[in-house]
Formats: sequence, structure tokens, C-alpha cells
Amino acid sequence: MTFDRPDAQQRDDIDPLAPFRQRFIIDEPALIYLDGNSLGRLPIATIDRSSRLIREEWGRRLIRSWNEAGWWDAPQRIGAQIATLIGARPDEVIIADSTSINLFKLAVAALRHQTGRQRLLTDDLNFPSDLYILQGAIELLGKQHELGVMPSPDGVHGADVAAHLDDQTALLTLSHTVFKSGFTYDIATVTAQAHEVGAMVLWDLSHSAGAVAMDLTAAGVDLAVGCTYKYLNGGPGSPAFLYVRRDLQEKLHNPLSGWLGQRSPFDFALDYRPAAGLRRFLTGTPPMAALALIEPGVALLNEAGIAALRGKSVAQTEYLIALWDAWLRPLGVALRSPRQAAQRGSHVTLAHPEGWRINRTLIEQMKVLPDFRAPDNIRFGITPLYTTYTEIYDAMARLRQVIEEKLYERYDPAERPDVT
Amino acid sequence: MTFDRPDAQQRDDIDPLAPFRQRFIIDEPALIYLDGNSLGRLPIATIDRSSRLIREEWGRRLIRSWNEAGWWDAPQRIGAQIATLIGARPDEVIIADSTSINLFKLAVAALRHQTGRQRLLTDDLNFPSDLYILQGAIELLGKQHELGVMPSPDGVHGADVAAHLDDQTALLTLSHTVFKSGFTYDIATVTAQAHEVGAMVLWDLSHSAGAVAMDLTAAGVDLAVGCTYKYLNGGPGSPAFLYVRRDLQEKLHNPLSGWLGQRSPFDFALDYRPAAGLRRFLTGTPPMAALALIEPGVALLNEAGIAALRGKSVAQTEYLIALWDAWLRPLGVALRSPRQAAQRGSHVTLAHPEGWRINRTLIEQMKVLPDFRAPDNIRFGITPLYTTYTEIYDAMARLRQVIEEKLYERYDPAERPDVT
Repeated sequence: MTFDRPDAQQRDDIDPLAPFRQRFIIDEPALIYLDGNSLGRLPIATIDRSSRLIREEWGRRLIRSWNEAGWWDAPQRIGAQIATLIGARPDEVIIADSTSINLFKLAVAALRHQTGRQRLLTDDLNFPSDLYILQGAIELLGKQHELGVMPSPDGVHGADVAAHLDDQTALLTLSHTVFKSGFTYDIATVTAQAHEVGAMVLWDLSHSAGAVAMDLTAAGVDLAVGCTYKYLNGGPGSPAFLYVRRDLQEKLHNPLSGWLGQRSPFDFALDYRPAAGLRRFLTGTPPMAALALIEPGVALLNEAGIAALRGKSVAQTEYLIALWDAWLRPLGVALRSPRQAAQRGSHVTLAHPEGWRINRTLIEQMKVLPDFRAPDNIRFGITPLYTTYTEIYDAMARLRQVIEEKLYERYDPAERPDVT
Repeated sequence: MTFDRPDAQQRDDIDPLAPFRQRFIIDEPALIYLDGNSLGRLPIATIDRSSRLIREEWGRRLIRSWNEAGWWDAPQRIGAQIATLIGARPDEVIIADSTSINLFKLAVAALRHQTGRQRLLTDDLNFPSDLYILQGAIELLGKQHELGVMPSPDGVHGADVAAHLDDQTALLTLSHTVFKSGFTYDIATVTAQAHEVGAMVLWDLSHSAGAVAMDLTAAGVDLAVGCTYKYLNGGPGSPAFLYVRRDLQEKLHNPLSGWLGQRSPFDFALDYRPAAGLRRFLTGTPPMAALALIEPGVALLNEAGIAALRGKSVAQTEYLIALWDAWLRPLGVALRSPRQAAQRGSHVTLAHPEGWRINRTLIEQMKVLPDFRAPDNIRFGITPLYTTYTEIYDAMARLRQVIEEKLYERYDPAERPDVT
């Protein structure tokens, strides 16, 4: 197979999702932005949503907007829109706080529900914040639980989960798509394995939601959390979502029991009584100026449809890997993502001993913006709503040039920030 | 003393803070907004800050803005600006999460620090969300602590704290200004009483910050939390702040140990090591589109100066109470706020058996916007940056008219939402 730029352009020409790129702000068309897996682009519709919220809802209508403008219901309304992207029912997803705080709520709720079981199981590919939160939760619960961290066989692929599950496992919690290699667990298989031994499952969907198709309902997933500022295009640090399977909602207790999760917040009763359904997992008043911005981005994803998005994402990561095979592998670049599409999310990680200097050269000299993850990984995020085949082609061509011509040598390796 | 409208206008004419009103969006000048203690008005400068953040920082510069646009440092930078309003040092205040979640972090940190002490002390005037969070925290810590809820003598004034403190008290936590009556504790006295028995103190400053002067440093306050969407004008649900006295920062542990509180978040190490200083009390990625909006409002407060703001607030609440005395007391309206200015925050609560219908009449018929708090309280919030004496005069005159002419009778009392 040969690759050339006309072929890449041809792929764009026939891409049915290509028009969605025009729904985003793209100020520097020459910049190849491959970091939408860290911070998604700004949907054009979000600009209006923001200015209406600030100028009209807050500025003009003031406190009245909590009811009039739908602020009060926004966590559930937007949650329901995310539900369709992850195969959940509308009343099973709600927006709240940050991914880390939602993980705390649900992990603690699960551990307290699973009386008599001591093990909390995760893996060493999980996002470190998740591990930190679990470590903190175990401390808080009186160190009655132990955290088992399953090793990845190769730093790329997920652990052999079935081998680590046992009848002492209270909760299995994993990143669905892992942040470094992009490996994606099979939700249905792993959830079934956990359920077989009576463990609950809590998935972190941060690197999947909006790019990887899944069906939480069919898999019977217990719990999930996820981020809205990556593929969902909600804006920097936009509030996170959480999912609780319908039949579990009344059985679990939110340890961060604040007034927004209270049955009747405006009674101002002195004792906490949890709200019905998912609202009990709310805590404090949500930051509306950020929360409201999630809605337009999620609407775009739903308009495109998650099946089509996943289809394009797979085609584009396959294309990137084919270019790597042809051009970069011979230059000593390693693929640190799975080759099998079913095991891969929407970013591809390439590695080279000079990864840090190469990444810097791409950003500062070549108008390519991926991101670097120690010790030597460069992540290329594919965001099917706006990434083009031509961008992938150009990015890989420039990466080849940087390595072939050793353009990275202009940077002093001593400038690399110390890993402490 | 007689009251008339020219006298009120005269008071506005000589008010040195009067020009600050022009720095806010006021779309309906005829609307008397006395709910700035729930949601502060929109500063004009915030509109630009928001559109720059959305359109330029997110839209154009994308992920690069975390460093370039000061997003990363914003929690500390804005925290330092709030510090001057509450008499704290710049490195003692940081923006994070919601008030309820910050209260959880600091209350749990304090209880774990105070080994061997079982009592957690608060009062029945505290904001219920604070009580709910404390109840949840005690559950989580294995029910080794008991929550003592000191009774207010009359539902208006704070409890006799000294009588309840003992050598088993681990932590005393109170709303500095209480949400219903506006009673304000004397921070210096109460903190000293707590320290005398070895208890730590955690103040909720939500109804004080930006309107009531205080000196946390002089009082030696251990811990505090507070909200930014009331007198600080940060926008609906804007993220909260927390304060930890400098010498305690390295001794306390954040139970919600997320990656933003980690020493080197981008090392992605598997074990949590807390950051130096106050950053350890961060958890997840903050919602920048809301967090950034806190800065312009706080700048306005600092420009006015907290001493001047408090001076005007006291003068205005005194004025409102004088009008009540002259006009409303004879009509059976009760004052549910302290008469002594030193014991009062920046809102005044009036009560009447028909409070719910009267409040609704004020809002729907009289262009006055206070808020109602069950069972019969109407809160009038004074926000010295933009509340005028004329507004207070007119609001009380209209309240008098509503009662004298029984204008509230147009509403069916059965429409009042059930308190369940």
C-alpha cells in the first residue's frame, strides 16, 4: 500500500462526518491539533450558549434563572444526553463535580455496599488520579480494604483481569480506555467476569466517552464516571459525569452528602435524607457557567451518532498506524498502542528514545500539537468530529522528517523538566 | 426620625461607593434586587473575561492555555485576591470545588489530626448542607465521632459556644454569618474560646466574604471555607475557596487526594504524594470557564476595600432596620436579625405570618426581589457595591403597602409548595 497526500484528501472527500469540522472554531487551519483527547475544540454553538448564560441568564434574570433557564435541571438534562453516547438509560447519568470526586463517591459507596469483601482491584495503566483517590478512600474507611494493582503485561495492554478476581473482590475499577497507550478493555466481558465472583464494576470512561461505542446497559455495568472536556468538547475542566445503574441508585449512599443531593433542599432540614434517584449523588451547587457549556458539544456528538464516530475513529487510527508501519517503524519508532482496533480507543501512542525532544519539535517547529507522556511516549489524539485524514497524513510526514533530519537536535535534552 | 425619598437619595448622593454600581450589568433599573446574598450581580468586566476565555484561550490557543493563559495558577492567584478580603495571607487561600466539598476535606482533615477527641461541634443555625456533610463525614470515619448541634437561644442569635466546648471537642465548625437570620459570630472571641480547650475551628464564610470584615490571621483561625457566588459576584455556582493557616498546611491531609493535589501531577506516578502548601487541597481539574469569572468580581471588591464595604453594609442594614421600626413593626412584622450591627452580616430578615404570600407579591407585583426562607422569613440582602439607599427605601415602602393593603391576598395560600 502506498500513501500520498491526494489519497488522504480523497479519504476526507468521501468522509460523511467531514462537515462537522465546520461546526468548530478553527482559528489556525495550519495547526494540526491532535490533542482533542486532552481538551476538545470549541464548538461554535458553545460561544452563544456561554454568552447567553452570562449576559442574559445571569446578568438580566439573576437568581430567577435557576428555575427559568433550566439551571436546576441541567445536571440531569445533560446527563441524559450523554447517556445515549454510552449506552445508558437517560435517568442513569448526571453531571457533577470532577471525575476524581465522582470516583470517590461511587467507589466509597460500592465498598460500603459490598460488606465483608476487602479487595479493591485496579491496574497499573489506570489514570493515576484514580489510584490516588482510591488510596485516599481506603485510608478514610479505616484501612480495612487492600488495593490490588494488576500489572499490565507490556505497559500497553490491559491486565488479565479474570486471573485476579476472587470472592474477596468488592470492586473492580479500571479506565475503560487507558490514558497512555489507548488500550480499551472489553466492557461486556470484564463486567461479566467481575459479576461472576460477586464484584461490582466501576469504569472510568474519560478517554472513551464520545469516541468509543459501548453499551453499559447490555453489559449490566454497575457504576461509571467520566470527563466531559476531552471528546465531549465541554471546555477546560468542565464538570464530569457519573453513571449508576438504575436498580442500584436507591441502594447506594453518597458519602459527600450535600444539600443538592438532599430530598428537599429548600426545606433546610437539619438531617440529611437522600433524594430519589440519581440526584442523591450531587453535593454542592454546580458551576453553571462551565456546566452549561457541555450541552452544545454533546449535541454535536449525538447528531453525528456514536456508531459513525467510532467507525471513523477506527478508520483514522488504522490509517495512522499504517503510516507508522510504512514510514516510522523503520526509523526506530515504536507503536505503544494495540494493533487490534477492538482493543484501541481513539488515540495512538508512538515512542522513541528522543520522544521528549521530538514532541517539542513537532509543537514548536512543525505546527503539530500532540502531547508527551513520560518517559518517551507521544500521544496522537483522533477526534472524529474534526480530525481529517490529511492532518494525520501531514502529522506523520512531519514526524518522519523530524526524525530523519534529526530536527530535534536543536533542543538541549537538559531542558527537559526533571521527573521528580 | 422621619424618612422620605429625598433623604434616601441624599444618602446615595454622598455615598463614596455609589459609582461602583455602574460597574455591574443592570438591565432592569426598576427591579430592586435584594438577593445578591444568594447570587451576586454580573460585573461588566466579567463579560469580557468570559468571552476571552471561551473564544481566545479555549477556542484559539486550546490546550496551550493551561500554561499560557494562567489557568494552572488561577486557583492560587484568585485565592490570594480573596485572602485580602478576609484578613488572610496570600498563600492561605485557594479556589477549589464547592463549599460543601471543601468543608468535607477540611473537616475530615481536622478530625484525623485531632486524635483522641470525639466531639464535632456546630449549631442549629448552620447552613444545612454543612450539617449534611458533617453527618456524612462521621459515618465515613466509622462513627467514632459525635456531632453536637448547639441550639440557638431564639432562632436568631448564635449559641453560647463557650458553654459547649470541652476537652473532647476536636473541631468547632460554624457559619460565620448564618444564612437565615444574618447573625454573625465574633471570629476572634469564638476562635480563642475553642483554642483554649484545644479544639480547632473551621468557619464557613459563605455569607460573610466580601461584605463582612474579618481578620483570620489576627484571630489565628485554623480553617475556613466559603462561597464565591454571593457577595464575591463570581457567577452561578462558581467554585468555592478554602483557607488553611500556613503552619497547618503541611500537617493536614486532603482525603480527596486527586492529581491536582499531587506533588508532580505530570509524572503520573502510581502513589500519591501531596503537593507542598495549599495545592494539596486541590482534587480534580477545575472548571476554568466558571473559575476564571471569579477574578473580576473580587477585583472590584478589593478596589472598594473591605473596610469601606463593611461600613456601607452596616449603614444600609441599620437604615433598613430603622425603616422597619418606623413602618413595619407596627404592622406585625418581626425582625429576625440581630439589632446590634456587630452581630449582623449583610442581610436582614423580616418575618410575618403571611411571609410566603408577601414575598411572592413583592416579586411578582412590586418589582422587589428578596428571598423566602421557611417558615415565614423574608431575607433582604444588602450588597454594598450596588445596593442603593433609595432601593432600600422603596423596598420597605412597598413591603408596607403590600401588608397594609393586603395585596398578598390575591395569592392562594394553598399554592405554597409543601414542606415535606
